[in-house]
Amino acid sequence: MTAKTWAYEDFVEGASLDLGTKEVNAAEIIAFASEFDAQPMHLDEAAGKASILGGLSASGWHTCAMFMRMLCDAFLLDSTSQGSPGIEHVKWKKPVLAGDTLSGTVTVLAKRQSKSRPQLGLVTMRSELFNQRGESVFELENTGMFLTREAAA
Amino acid sequence: MTAKTWAYEDFVEGASLDLGTKEVNAAEIIAFASEFDAQPMHLDEAAGKASILGGLSASGWHTCAMFMRMLCDAFLLDSTSQGSPGIEHVKWKKPVLAGDTLSGTVTVLAKRQSKSRPQLGLVTMRSELFNQRGESVFELENTGMFLTREAAA
Repeated sequence: MTAKTWAYEDFVEGASLDLGTKEVNAAEIIAFASEFDAQPMHLDEAAGKASILGGLSASGWHTCAMFMRMLCDAFLLDSTSQGSPGIEHVKWKKPVLAGDTLSGTVTVLAKRQSKSRPQLGLVTMRSELFNQRGESVFELENTGMFLTREAAA
Repeated sequence: MTAKTWAYEDFVEGASLDLGTKEVNAAEIIAFASEFDAQPMHLDEAAGKASILGGLSASGWHTCAMFMRMLCDAFLLDSTSQGSPGIEHVKWKKPVLAGDTLSGTVTVLAKRQSKSRPQLGLVTMRSELFNQRGESVFELENTGMFLTREAAA
């Protein structure tokens, strides 16, 4: 038996998990943007205010990365995860601004065992992040690959 | 007139742009993963080799972020970009490993002016990254918002 809490068998269609919270701060927004997405609205408060985003806003990819960290801390690092073949969609619904506090949930939409690699199962999840006003800011649907409990043993 | 080279009008359906190259190194893979996606195969060569990825491999989100940097350097920072409402899909087709050199292209699939905000146009793009063996490792379809040349003036 694997010591991990979450193997393929442990995901239940329709079940939801809490993603905890993440405070979004200006220094992290600017550090991420400087390396990967140096558009003015992600680097500077005044430029953000002048843009349609209305303030210093996280790169959409930074929001994805913060989401991934929340997913890791919620269950992924305690799972038999073997990565993911891709993302069905991402919606950046509202700006994620410096000072926001994100919270979120992930819901299991569907699961199936791989035909070509029966030691693996595919779990499709829909995740959503909210800001401190309860507004939905981010939605993602993706598929993760997890070893079965037997294969992980 | 905006000083930017790329406004909404400058995108042509069917046109392709080169994304240059990016060398993927172990230190950057580990740094990104430590902050956002601390799964063993993104942190450690031996764990990567033991996984189905076959080596120390970039987090899929890190590949997205490296892609974004390539897009920024290719044209986005010299454009009237106003961000993006989301991603249609991402496919992580093959592992991106330490030592790989990525190259890529972006192709304009479609464009249309926003009905609710006529100063903005929506440009849908398909991007693809390849490794040094010419294998396609990453595919992404997304929509960017760009000010018209007049609105950016």
